[in-house]
Amino acid sequence: MTGPPIHEPLLQNPMSDATLFEDPTLLKKARAIRLLVLDVDGVLTDGRLYYGAQGEALKVFNTLDGHGIKMLQRAGVKVAIITGRRGEALLARARDLGIDWIQQGREDKFVALQEMLAAEPIPLDEIACMGDDWPDLAVMTRVGLSLTVANAHPEVKARAHWLSQNRGGEGAVREACDLLLRAQNHFQQILGEYAARD
Amino acid sequence: MTGPPIHEPLLQNPMSDATLFEDPTLLKKARAIRLLVLDVDGVLTDGRLYYGAQGEALKVFNTLDGHGIKMLQRAGVKVAIITGRRGEALLARARDLGIDWIQQGREDKFVALQEMLAAEPIPLDEIACMGDDWPDLAVMTRVGLSLTVANAHPEVKARAHWLSQNRGGEGAVREACDLLLRAQNHFQQILGEYAARD
Amino acid sequence: MTGPPIHEPLLQNPMSDATLFEDPTLLKKARAIRLLVLDVDGVLTDGRLYYGAQGEALKVFNTLDGHGIKMLQRAGVKVAIITGRRGEALLARARDLGIDWIQQGREDKFVALQEMLAAEPIPLDEIACMGDDWPDLAVMTRVGLSLTVANAHPEVKARAHWLSQNRGGEGAVREACDLLLRAQNHFQQILGEYAARD
Amino acid sequence: MTGPPIHEPLLQNPMSDATLFEDPTLLKKARAIRLLVLDVDGVLTDGRLYYGAQGEALKVFNTLDGHGIKMLQRAGVKVAIITGRRGEALLARARDLGIDWIQQGREDKFVALQEMLAAEPIPLDEIACMGDDWPDLAVMTRVGLSLTVANAHPEVKARAHWLSQNRGGEGAVREACDLLLRAQNHFQQILGEYAARD
Repeated sequence: MTGPPIHEPLLQNPMSDATLFEDPTLLKKARAIRLLVLDVDGVLTDGRLYYGAQGEALKVFNTLDGHGIKMLQRAGVKVAIITGRRGEALLARARDLGIDWIQQGREDKFVALQEMLAAEPIPLDEIACMGDDWPDLAVMTRVGLSLTVANAHPEVKARAHWLSQNRGGEGAVREACDLLLRAQNHFQQILGEYAARD
Repeated sequence: MTGPPIHEPLLQNPMSDATLFEDPTLLKKARAIRLLVLDVDGVLTDGRLYYGAQGEALKVFNTLDGHGIKMLQRAGVKVAIITGRRGEALLARARDLGIDWIQQGREDKFVALQEMLAAEPIPLDEIACMGDDWPDLAVMTRVGLSLTVANAHPEVKARAHWLSQNRGGEGAVREACDLLLRAQNHFQQILGEYAARD
Repeated sequence: MTGPPIHEPLLQNPMSDATLFEDPTLLKKARAIRLLVLDVDGVLTDGRLYYGAQGEALKVFNTLDGHGIKMLQRAGVKVAIITGRRGEALLARARDLGIDWIQQGREDKFVALQEMLAAEPIPLDEIACMGDDWPDLAVMTRVGLSLTVANAHPEVKARAHWLSQNRGGEGAVREACDLLLRAQNHFQQILGEYAARD
Repeated sequence: MTGPPIHEPLLQNPMSDATLFEDPTLLKKARAIRLLVLDVDGVLTDGRLYYGAQGEALKVFNTLDGHGIKMLQRAGVKVAIITGRRGEALLARARDLGIDWIQQGREDKFVALQEMLAAEPIPLDEIACMGDDWPDLAVMTRVGLSLTVANAHPEVKARAHWLSQNRGGEGAVREACDLLLRAQNHFQQILGEYAARD
């Protein structure tokens, strides 16, 4: 049983990176990336902190981001998390996404990155970092590609190479994954597999 | 005790399908539908995943959608759920809505659909599917009517016949229910019953 | 110890009822109201239903609405709740707000209203109802003043006398309270008391 | 290991106080502030009240605000909380932020402020207050600098010296912290330290 051919595009593409291939500087940076370092609050989440009587009780992630992270990993790009807070909810989410490089409770984010790289060295210009607030600048200003979100602090936006259209926790990380997949020529192939699969 | 006659419309109708009856292709597709297949995350929800220490802790649905699903079922259209995740919260919501066709933990969504149809065959052109991400494409590209949401991935929007004005979890599914009810000439009758009832 | 005089207005007033006193029909209806009947989901909340494994786990209200309801009650207008769902969270919120007229689990909302009125009769043209979906129409089309929210179903908007600028759960009920307080000439007096109090 | 120099600004700065130094009145008020008094619901949160069966179950704060409060405290400005509600979640959040001046369950907010000042007197014109609803006016109209949020009640907006671009719970308090840090000439120095640190 097979379906009809894929429909022609009907609608605008608000999350598209249409300008990617018109921006050779960005394209070159994105092609080199082998590791994506993500902040949590404000990037993988919308920055909301859900407190109960014992402190943080919930952490709210996004399904679009999760799928993007999985595809990016399958395409050979490693994903790591460095965050200033700590909690079980993040660990549960990271487990679901197969992310095993995690540094929690780290204000010194660039030191935390270097500790991770000690085990498996990756040059800085092959690393991207997506952050939203000042503590992320230590990494963002040193790696090859700095990514940020629509809801980032303005001083972080001012220092990023690329800004997502969506806010953190609302698909911003998926946009970043799409950017890397497009730049590394995996995007159309994976998409075609999804549309064609049973 | 009777009230005054129903007031004349005062306000714009942002969720209206005013163009439905000017679009004979869409109208024909929608008239044929006997089964609506829904994705969960990003469609029945806004895509947020609420994690506690043990993984997903809450799932957030919408009251407008729930009422639409109930009316659609009463009008004779079956509603099914196929989702890549699994959890008790979804089962509780499905119970409240009287949805008994559910496939959880299925990445292979078209296979899951075919398994459901083995028990009660329905031709593909009498099936609508509402999804928001790439795993939904396997079903969306094969059924008679593919529906998506304002917050869908752009590549899914590009392949859908129809796009809701609201985001998933904010009334998108209700819009889809309204579309089918209008196309099948149940909308005005049911609406009149609600306004007239005691 | 006294402070400086109240500052002159600096900013626009997006929630204002500036047109109220230019709309004699609305003003007359609002002046007569002695009972405000509220729906819950989509009106006192933004329509989100937070499900855990055992069904609805949380209900999310708004602080602006709560303060408006308390001021309205102090000004002599009774507040009642009629909702199609049931749950402990709503009862807890109603307790905090001093609302003792509650009907839960009622699809037949006009019948529910009549049962409440049996104990304390109030003419229909002295009752306002704020709703967002079709089950609310049975009451909204019969009472003196029908109010709705920015996120209401379009067919409900089409039948309401007044539409809030805010969505349900984001201050819509406060706007309705302000409307009634202004129409009944309590607004400026109460506001002055707040600004002047120690 | 050192990174490249900080990139030149690429993007607009929506949260910026670009006009601060063109507004000598605001600048003078902000320079004098030694204590920032914050309301909770609608200011440190977006005004949503998450109820379970036993009443309020969660309180939702923002990571951008938290970082701003910590930087402001390090720069020598004290932060206090005065709120009409009470709950353990707020105490947990205040503990994380190192805020020890808290008054809960206080409708009489100016009296509550005076009680706090009895222990450590601060002149009113060296105090800023950020609120969103009428009970905050007792303090806001008496202190040197009154701040409010994008989602405040319009009558509060009309009485504030300054309005954040973000809503409460979405970075409004961070904007206020940035305003004070800029006015007191700490902003660029702290920012530089973050970008330069390892």
